[in-house]
Amino acid sequence: MIASLATTALTQFLDIGGTRFAYRRFGTPAGTPLVFTQHFMGNLDNFDPAVSDALAAGREIILFDNAGVGRSTGTAPHTIAAMAADAASFIDGLGLATVDILGHSMGGEIAQLIALDRPDLVRRLVLVGTGPRGGDAIARQAPEVAPLFTRRDELGEDMWLPIMFSPSKESQAAGRAFISRITARTDDRDIPVSDETITAYRDAARGWASAPADNFGYLDGIAQPALVVNGSNDIVIPTINSYHLYQHLPDAELMLLPDSGHGAHFQYVERFVRRVIDFLDVQPHDTAAPACRPACG
Amino acid sequence: MIASLATTALTQFLDIGGTRFAYRRFGTPAGTPLVFTQHFMGNLDNFDPAVSDALAAGREIILFDNAGVGRSTGTAPHTIAAMAADAASFIDGLGLATVDILGHSMGGEIAQLIALDRPDLVRRLVLVGTGPRGGDAIARQAPEVAPLFTRRDELGEDMWLPIMFSPSKESQAAGRAFISRITARTDDRDIPVSDETITAYRDAARGWASAPADNFGYLDGIAQPALVVNGSNDIVIPTINSYHLYQHLPDAELMLLPDSGHGAHFQYVERFVRRVIDFLDVQPHDTAAPACRPACG
Repeated sequence: MIASLATTALTQFLDIGGTRFAYRRFGTPAGTPLVFTQHFMGNLDNFDPAVSDALAAGREIILFDNAGVGRSTGTAPHTIAAMAADAASFIDGLGLATVDILGHSMGGEIAQLIALDRPDLVRRLVLVGTGPRGGDAIARQAPEVAPLFTRRDELGEDMWLPIMFSPSKESQAAGRAFISRITARTDDRDIPVSDETITAYRDAARGWASAPADNFGYLDGIAQPALVVNGSNDIVIPTINSYHLYQHLPDAELMLLPDSGHGAHFQYVERFVRRVIDFLDVQPHDTAAPACRPACG
Repeated sequence: MIASLATTALTQFLDIGGTRFAYRRFGTPAGTPLVFTQHFMGNLDNFDPAVSDALAAGREIILFDNAGVGRSTGTAPHTIAAMAADAASFIDGLGLATVDILGHSMGGEIAQLIALDRPDLVRRLVLVGTGPRGGDAIARQAPEVAPLFTRRDELGEDMWLPIMFSPSKESQAAGRAFISRITARTDDRDIPVSDETITAYRDAARGWASAPADNFGYLDGIAQPALVVNGSNDIVIPTINSYHLYQHLPDAELMLLPDSGHGAHFQYVERFVRRVIDFLDVQPHDTAAPACRPACG
């Protein structure tokens, strides 16, 4: 058995304009690096090692704590836009000219704004369990969801099993396997998100969801190819938001998975990874279907 | 250059209970055969050779005219249910115990009912540009669409370019490539759908779309894994119907493609085929994501 790169990669630090960013970087230095942007309440340890290990075979993976999160210093801002600026400054600080971004939940909101503001920097987007700014007008999170994010137990099962997975036996079993993966690291673990950051992030989430409806016009400006992914019943950012994100992005494909929730990619790791590899590595080289190939007749 | 199997396969005939079915069968006799069910106004020549050739590398492909269509004899029925029964009798008549079905548009409606009525016969479903029974309650076809199906020109461009493709330059170019593929066959071509069949099929389409709303309860009975595919703006069976089909089928994945219409799989042939091969051949063997693989730590 080979060791998990994601579980064993040491945490590194990068100082940018007064903020010290904690990150982990591993994989094969080839092609375009893939930067992951994290969900609310998540730190470096909450990225699924099975997903990042599988994708690391074909590229470098960069996981990081945004400003004010986990072992990064700085103050968490109260808007998604400011988080996107922090993330872009971190990517710039690494000296990377072009990256792909895989953003989950709030990380997907951040990824949208980096792609919008920095078309030179972002080549392709994978947007998982997320939605457009102003999505609240379409489908509001149920009131019982927010308290799930306050549950605290040692492994995180009380918080993440109901948030990321469907209630079915199969999905919950996949959830427990996910928990075992994200808790496998014993050394060099990250530290929990602070109460101050939680407050700031809740403000940012509210601001994003409740932005004035503008028919999602800002999405016209995100020309990068995007793969939009979600589960069948995302209780955090209701699934219909992924449909609308797809409908309003100029070049997006939608992949919605069966019997799953906000963390569908943690449940269908192999299927998700194969699709992402196709999207990042193969599809850009697709040719238009020829008039006749093989030769007609 | 190798010849297109789909374009060169000779038409065969099978007599079942007084109906003579015209069909074409080709590919690699391995695994589960894939039967295509056709859209309104389509005959044997309207299946895209690029799609069926690519899928034929890993299985047998069976294209057929349902009763009353093209070179098949018999009378076209006025309901989707009766068309599904005709199609099942044809598949049974070939002596096949288990098949996968790729149904497009009205062919996808037929495929749903075969899968519902004959769970033993159908292993997996690919449902393209289609929707649930009673879908009219969600999104009605615009009144300018039906007349498109009456356009007649030699190649079929006046009918199929606006129906199957988006208005964009790229999509229309893909549409012309598609037209060149479906018109490449010179010998042994099929014959147009008769006026009598057109009338019957219009009745069937109306009946399907306007069925009493039952919250799509019949879809609970289709347990087979399904891949639901559509374009971003299907003007024939509006795209939101694919979302609802996905939401109500017990085990479905949704794949929606960018800048495309009712024939998105004719536009993104390579991307679509790769996903279908993964769905039919690879995904069934996926294991649940392990607790730790590679070994954690």
